[in-house]
Amino acid sequence: MPWVDDHNASLVTDLYELTMAAAYHAEGLADATATFELWVRRLPPQRRFLLAAGLDDALRYLEGWSFDDASLDYLRSLDKFSDGFLDHLAGLRFEGAVWAVPEGNPVFDGEPLLRITAPLAQAQLQETFLLNAIGFQTMIASKAARVAIACGDRAFIDFGARRSHGADAALKGARAAYVGGAARTSMVLAGREYGIPVTGTMAHSYVQAHPDEATAFEAFARTFPDDAVFLIDTYDTVRGARIAAEVAHRLAEDGIALKGVRLDSGDLAALAFEVRHVLDGEGLGHVQIIASGGLDEHEVARIVASEAPIDAFGVGTSMTTSEDDPNLDIVYKLVQDERGPQMKVSTGKRTLPGIKQVWRTDTGDTIALADERRAGDPLLIDVMESGMRLHPPASLKRVRSHAAESIAALPDEVRSLEPHEGTPWQVDVSPRLRALEESVAAAHR
Amino acid sequence: MPWVDDHNASLVTDLYELTMAAAYHAEGLADATATFELWVRRLPPQRRFLLAAGLDDALRYLEGWSFDDASLDYLRSLDKFSDGFLDHLAGLRFEGAVWAVPEGNPVFDGEPLLRITAPLAQAQLQETFLLNAIGFQTMIASKAARVAIACGDRAFIDFGARRSHGADAALKGARAAYVGGAARTSMVLAGREYGIPVTGTMAHSYVQAHPDEATAFEAFARTFPDDAVFLIDTYDTVRGARIAAEVAHRLAEDGIALKGVRLDSGDLAALAFEVRHVLDGEGLGHVQIIASGGLDEHEVARIVASEAPIDAFGVGTSMTTSEDDPNLDIVYKLVQDERGPQMKVSTGKRTLPGIKQVWRTDTGDTIALADERRAGDPLLIDVMESGMRLHPPASLKRVRSHAAESIAALPDEVRSLEPHEGTPWQVDVSPRLRALEESVAAAHR
Repeated sequence: MPWVDDHNASLVTDLYELTMAAAYHAEGLADATATFELWVRRLPPQRRFLLAAGLDDALRYLEGWSFDDASLDYLRSLDKFSDGFLDHLAGLRFEGAVWAVPEGNPVFDGEPLLRITAPLAQAQLQETFLLNAIGFQTMIASKAARVAIACGDRAFIDFGARRSHGADAALKGARAAYVGGAARTSMVLAGREYGIPVTGTMAHSYVQAHPDEATAFEAFARTFPDDAVFLIDTYDTVRGARIAAEVAHRLAEDGIALKGVRLDSGDLAALAFEVRHVLDGEGLGHVQIIASGGLDEHEVARIVASEAPIDAFGVGTSMTTSEDDPNLDIVYKLVQDERGPQMKVSTGKRTLPGIKQVWRTDTGDTIALADERRAGDPLLIDVMESGMRLHPPASLKRVRSHAAESIAALPDEVRSLEPHEGTPWQVDVSPRLRALEESVAAAHR
Repeated sequence: MPWVDDHNASLVTDLYELTMAAAYHAEGLADATATFELWVRRLPPQRRFLLAAGLDDALRYLEGWSFDDASLDYLRSLDKFSDGFLDHLAGLRFEGAVWAVPEGNPVFDGEPLLRITAPLAQAQLQETFLLNAIGFQTMIASKAARVAIACGDRAFIDFGARRSHGADAALKGARAAYVGGAARTSMVLAGREYGIPVTGTMAHSYVQAHPDEATAFEAFARTFPDDAVFLIDTYDTVRGARIAAEVAHRLAEDGIALKGVRLDSGDLAALAFEVRHVLDGEGLGHVQIIASGGLDEHEVARIVASEAPIDAFGVGTSMTTSEDDPNLDIVYKLVQDERGPQMKVSTGKRTLPGIKQVWRTDTGDTIALADERRAGDPLLIDVMESGMRLHPPASLKRVRSHAAESIAALPDEVRSLEPHEGTPWQVDVSPRLRALEESVAAAHR
């Protein structure tokens, strides 16, 4: 079936990127230097911070970006582009410079996550893919970070693959969920591609395919003696716990230890107390309880607040689709070209002109011009020059631990799961940048 | 970068599918015949019907499904699976039978969209991918169908690629949007892979990259004389319309006709009246007005009701992420095996046992057992036997026109865009199926 891959990814683009590039080519503007920045315009009320993710894929894409013969043949078939432009596309590689916020850092509205300086046509042609890749992973990592906050010191597992939006989302969503704090994933290919620990034992269909729960549990444990986690809610959860305990005693005679039970329906907190009671009464205090089924960060927080004895949560649909906010208002805009700083003044969509840097202190951020020096640390670093990466990819484990540390360091107000109205984190615009904005806007009046 | 393709798609699965399959293999149950059905448990309040989509990809996946050496090596590295099972996986191909609702048909909650009868382990291993592929495309096609209803006789264009969840969603979301009624897409690869007409001209950055709008418009039209559509809201929409008109007159001298203008911000309906007035006053009555920017079906319906002179709508983010309902409660469950009909009785997740068919009349549907004959037409047809497709893929154009006709034939109450509380469309369960449900449930008490 049709798939996106490295050969056709340059066609994961809106046609207007190509018509604009063709017009630039015809006008002799294609190679004029331009700078575009990518940022999220507004934080949704349900997000007090975002967690940057997706940069590694974005850079891999830029490194490999080209138009192969099949792509060029299709573009030729549209009868829209000149042979001269298509020949130009055939030889095109990305030669620009990129600055970006490394993955795993909290970011806020209006702050550039990525900045590209490149020949105008090249920079324009990256828009659609970069918005898609960085927007998606940042959205999922941000949602996962909220689940991690709700979990506190308990673990959560990404169960999202079946409900994510297509196969690429299942793969890269698992990556982003891991960056945001998931301990493991159920998604096998994500384990293979990213080294994320994978986990999984049985579904209800497995229990149903046996004459009774005891038979199913015992058969599974004898196949996977090191992974005996039983799903106990197919018929009646508390009865399922008692059956699991009986089976555990039989297995113990053969040296097999029951590792855990999973609840996937009903009042998870109340059932966990009952199940814990059954297990402890049977001397199975070491057996973990895993809960899943329609969980989001709010439900996890309620369960944790109830002190229900749940050791780990499986979180799927709500996280993998960022259910309460399934898209970010993410944009990629021209901010400077050879004539100087540029901005958009459309109603409600005004942008800040010029090449920017973000400075972070313990109390807030300042968006400034790139040649300013402000208090704190700069968020954007140079990651690509002349189309070549400047650093090897960071290990995903390190990105994940950096994210956890960075989020832990945020004030409680920013880590809160409640919707925000005002400004959970102060983001200022430097006086020089504000003055530039006024002068460029005035020129358009 | 990591991509899903035909070689690794079998790993787009939850690990538990593999552990269950391995346990079945160890228990000698792997080849017992089992039937699974896939359906949406509940219609969300914002959806009065769903539009089936994604079947073609599901069948392509089943046809090509296998575990290549790289996949087997990874599974071996987990130190979890026996050599016997991995050898078994190496030779495994899908050999089952599939019945399904063809793409482009309206479906409702509880109705099987797809039914697989196959050796138990094979059928189990398809769960995650099938839910992902059919769930995603059905969700997007259903959302697009609502936009189509709102548009009435005006056209809409899919602008979603940049905000969809990853690259596969951008590609297959464009396909699903087309099935649901989009006339064109901006997404170039979807044009190449599916033959969907592609469209696109310029973004604000193009206008900004020129000294003024007139220069930008004229340069673009001279490069694309057959595609002169100007984006007129970069600075001031009505002023932009006047400038577009001036440029149109200059271009007319050289035989180039202005085709359209696009508005992407502000009060689109009010601005469209003003822009139409400007254009008509300049003798440019033939110039189309295209509107985009944050549109969903409700906003489109409001604009259409205002009789604003907008010829086509660009709809992106809200449609491509199914914003008001970004996931379907879609499930894949064992309904029958060699011992007879099976069901799940978990709290709030009870399922109907047995192999089913859905019968549709002009006034409602009946879910019945597959060997019953009911009034109306059956929705599920046989599409695969022994792992081979029975029919060549339907042309996407035909699927789209069938969808449009089927939706047009639905009662107004089902086509309404308002949230529903009750049952917009009657879905009954046949007495025989209800009796079976009671008897199987009783056996679990």
